[in-house]
Amino acid sequence: MTTRQSIILADGRDLFYFDLAPGADRSAKDQRELPQTATSSQIRWDPLFSEWSVIAGHRQSRTYRPPTSLCPLCPTRDDENLTEVPAADYDVAVFENRFPSLTTEAGESVPVVDDFPFKSGPGDGRCEVVCFTSDHNTSFSQLDTAHARTVFDALADRTAALSAIPTIEYIFCFENRGEEIGVTLSHPHGQIYGYPLVPPRMLRAAETAADYEREHGACLRCELLRREIEAVDRIVTATEHWTALVPFAARWPYEVRIIANRHVPDLPALTDTERDDLATIYLDVLGRFDRLFETPAPYIAGWHQAPVRTLRDSWHLGAEIFTIRRAPGKLKYLAGSESGAAVWINDISPEIAAARLRGD
Amino acid sequence: MTTRQSIILADGRDLFYFDLAPGADRSAKDQRELPQTATSSQIRWDPLFSEWSVIAGHRQSRTYRPPTSLCPLCPTRDDENLTEVPAADYDVAVFENRFPSLTTEAGESVPVVDDFPFKSGPGDGRCEVVCFTSDHNTSFSQLDTAHARTVFDALADRTAALSAIPTIEYIFCFENRGEEIGVTLSHPHGQIYGYPLVPPRMLRAAETAADYEREHGACLRCELLRREIEAVDRIVTATEHWTALVPFAARWPYEVRIIANRHVPDLPALTDTERDDLATIYLDVLGRFDRLFETPAPYIAGWHQAPVRTLRDSWHLGAEIFTIRRAPGKLKYLAGSESGAAVWINDISPEIAAARLRGD
Repeated sequence: MTTRQSIILADGRDLFYFDLAPGADRSAKDQRELPQTATSSQIRWDPLFSEWSVIAGHRQSRTYRPPTSLCPLCPTRDDENLTEVPAADYDVAVFENRFPSLTTEAGESVPVVDDFPFKSGPGDGRCEVVCFTSDHNTSFSQLDTAHARTVFDALADRTAALSAIPTIEYIFCFENRGEEIGVTLSHPHGQIYGYPLVPPRMLRAAETAADYEREHGACLRCELLRREIEAVDRIVTATEHWTALVPFAARWPYEVRIIANRHVPDLPALTDTERDDLATIYLDVLGRFDRLFETPAPYIAGWHQAPVRTLRDSWHLGAEIFTIRRAPGKLKYLAGSESGAAVWINDISPEIAAARLRGD
Repeated sequence: MTTRQSIILADGRDLFYFDLAPGADRSAKDQRELPQTATSSQIRWDPLFSEWSVIAGHRQSRTYRPPTSLCPLCPTRDDENLTEVPAADYDVAVFENRFPSLTTEAGESVPVVDDFPFKSGPGDGRCEVVCFTSDHNTSFSQLDTAHARTVFDALADRTAALSAIPTIEYIFCFENRGEEIGVTLSHPHGQIYGYPLVPPRMLRAAETAADYEREHGACLRCELLRREIEAVDRIVTATEHWTALVPFAARWPYEVRIIANRHVPDLPALTDTERDDLATIYLDVLGRFDRLFETPAPYIAGWHQAPVRTLRDSWHLGAEIFTIRRAPGKLKYLAGSESGAAVWINDISPEIAAARLRGD
């Protein structure tokens, strides 16, 4: 059973320990002299393309590929490297990002502007770092199921906690893995962004699902899942409570969605059994990405949770995992079509990708 | 005055020469034995996120970083390297991509499927390659204004020609420059995609502009331009007919939009004077990107043209140029927030970016 303890870091940020079993002593204090960082996060509206972007001008000085001996996500094993995690060991640790893209402190320094065509406001959200394990030299896919389950408990706990912050509209839990994706810290970790807006991709999905439910009295993703199971050829693997498949219109060379078989809105809504089962299928899918090429594939994994305050009933929980590697030594870059026009060109057919991920 | 000649390549593809002056002999025949390539481009609809993606499963074998002596975009100077361009020299050459993401031949082999939730059809469009110059070792920014003007004449000509293909809904002219963006051929070139759909980003912009015009009886981008000129601090440079500025909600570290001062829908609608003037400001802006860092910045440049068949009157032409380099040796990667949720996090404030691009 996952247990939670918390401390306050030297500059006032929260840190939470999630342990597999009760009784661990996580009371170690942060011994650093840590100056407060300046944060000036702002959201700005683009009236031409109808979307928000986040301007986080203070983040350029963030830690960039430190040597392993100075890894800030390792536990504090000795006085030589006083890290972000004061305890000498941990199972899963979550703390507020020292260089956040979004921060609840932005509201104090950034004004609200609404003077057409200029619309902006504070980036009044929260960014947390999730250390999956104290072992620097491993990866999520190497965790055992009990440990992975604790990671999902941590994500569910933090989703519930961030949902209670009034300015936050959407909680996005994700992992970037691999230097090819620009990861600046190699210690196995993910992130949680609490956005003060519903991200455009999620808003479109939420509105589409709500429209479908209004028209058909059913859940779009439940129906989609039923049809995909009938079609068979894009299914990668399944457990009692979850189904992993390559989407019919996959954008990435290898892309998998892990969909809850039950209609649930978000991670906090999962039962114990569903969480245990999630650990099993998630590790299975990550293992398949590790085996696609001669070296483990770089990937981005993110959770599709319901928005915090709107269109929740029609939402259906799933995760998305994709790699940008299209062949050994070759990456799929987001170039003109994707970055300029938002049309993804995928060089691998979803049915072939699914067969390769199944190991056919 | 730009003159145009055309030939048919050995496998039936079109090639067009655009020359600065009449009289050049471009009649050289393609001497290669070139087998037809198999194309199977398909568009597929994602019903959850409401967007199309393009599945182009045949493109994995495309040419990947050939040595300069085998560059397929150089003119055919001798029998050692029979390139895509049979003439011994050229000013600007445009030809159909041998490994296209979209092709008008897809309609013959790819069925239309509309069996909810599965919706797909042929990727019935056209992809062209635009060789900016026969000189392998230069870049767009080094062209003289008369030559750059000929490139824009070529883009305008091809936009008009592709607009006449009944299945094509949007013409996107763009350039990817730099290995960091995944460019596989270093010869200075751009691309033209004729999509059988209006790309999601452009559709949103077109609908937003149409809504604004309906409500206010005015053009959104004309109004935006007026206000940006008043605000001053994001303006990078200007000519009589064009204004270059960093958008208020810029998504990228350094991003510039070059906006036509006159309300015009697309490149074919530009006058001679506007095209000459465009060459001047475009080269000026590219030069600024070249000087941002110690080496020329990798960039993506793309034209925001009106959709071919819909919402044209309210559209206002502009170009977008951005670099993914955020600091010397550091790239802005599209990771979880951008690729997963479509929320761009920009570490450089637009006002600071504009000042640096102005050279303040």
